[in-house]
Amino acid sequence: MASKKIKKEPDTKKSPSSKFEGSFYPQRVVLDTSLFVNPDVRKSFGDTPTEALEAFLFLAAQIHILEFYMPPSIFEELLHFIEKDKIPEDLLLILHQKPPKKHELKCPAFLLYELIEDIRERVNKGLRIAEKAVRSVETKSSDEIIQDLRRKYREALREGIIDSKEDVDILLLAMELDALLVTADQGLIKWAEKLGIKWLFPEKFKNYLLGAIKRSGLLTGKVK
Amino acid sequence: MASKKIKKEPDTKKSPSSKFEGSFYPQRVVLDTSLFVNPDVRKSFGDTPTEALEAFLFLAAQIHILEFYMPPSIFEELLHFIEKDKIPEDLLLILHQKPPKKHELKCPAFLLYELIEDIRERVNKGLRIAEKAVRSVETKSSDEIIQDLRRKYREALREGIIDSKEDVDILLLAMELDALLVTADQGLIKWAEKLGIKWLFPEKFKNYLLGAIKRSGLLTGKVK
Repeated sequence: MASKKIKKEPDTKKSPSSKFEGSFYPQRVVLDTSLFVNPDVRKSFGDTPTEALEAFLFLAAQIHILEFYMPPSIFEELLHFIEKDKIPEDLLLILHQKPPKKHELKCPAFLLYELIEDIRERVNKGLRIAEKAVRSVETKSSDEIIQDLRRKYREALREGIIDSKEDVDILLLAMELDALLVTADQGLIKWAEKLGIKWLFPEKFKNYLLGAIKRSGLLTGKVK
Repeated sequence: MASKKIKKEPDTKKSPSSKFEGSFYPQRVVLDTSLFVNPDVRKSFGDTPTEALEAFLFLAAQIHILEFYMPPSIFEELLHFIEKDKIPEDLLLILHQKPPKKHELKCPAFLLYELIEDIRERVNKGLRIAEKAVRSVETKSSDEIIQDLRRKYREALREGIIDSKEDVDILLLAMELDALLVTADQGLIKWAEKLGIKWLFPEKFKNYLLGAIKRSGLLTGKVK
């Protein structure tokens, strides 16, 4: 599966980070909230979002070869799940908040075709779900049906698609920084693939950090 | 209203067409099918799509300062409405079929935000329409309701949006050629505005052509 490996892509002019192995220029990493919020995803970091964020910060503070970023809109989402007074104050120094340069960045025009084709199919699917709901009224109460309709409709129209400002923010930021995107969101991964953005499943992220700690030590000569 | 004027925008490097007034370099014009197919829109050209296309070709053949384009996908649509044997054979010489360079063109990334915001609102609207339909089952037959549902749903999710490959084709072609887009489609006009594409309502198009004929004569010295 694609999730097994971290993709290393040739760097663009903007980011000389991996022009040669072992460069001190930091590699950028863009984080999604799912990493801390989703219980299945965060489990290697902690039992609660706060614990997971603390554990991440503890590891990240020891890493000199990576820079961590999050768009402010995603950070806002994260704050809803966090006990703020428990988070060490170096959070803002370790996890940089940066919005993408949305008025400077360009995306390939052929992506519009894919986005629109995708939406078209979903819209048609949504209508079929609605029709089915109307036809089922004879067998169930309309409250039951509507509950069912809402779930199915949202599944059909939202899952696996980039459907929010926050999704676009995170994709564009990763594109701008030529960063590694860490997310469990299938819609984001699909678009990262289209846009040539490196990505990593969160379950690989702890090992990635541990590797970076080791490498940070080797590079600064603190570890034999 | 914005429809009153043809917008003249500063030209890009790619198209030297209007660097100086009266240049012989042709200005490009991209045509939508609505111009020939929609009865209200085509009325200054002809009673049927075939007549309208003939009338356009008759005028266009006299114009040396404009070049007319249509993406092949849009041309395919047009062919469904046309009696092909009545169309003069210089059609293909006057109305050029060209697909956009979709893998070379770039579009500003901030448009993704607008497209996604737009879709999000429509999707929510679609769900509310579906819910209403389910609740109305007690008062009407489900066949009636579904007919009504389909109409309202399509209106809510499709109108005023670019929702097809053909829509993207025509916008990107106009962008690529720095052309004037002639369309009655509100969704296309909205996006032309975002992308800085010159546009013209079809009801102004006949006068635009007559002006171009006059100007063609002046420029080639055939008219005193």
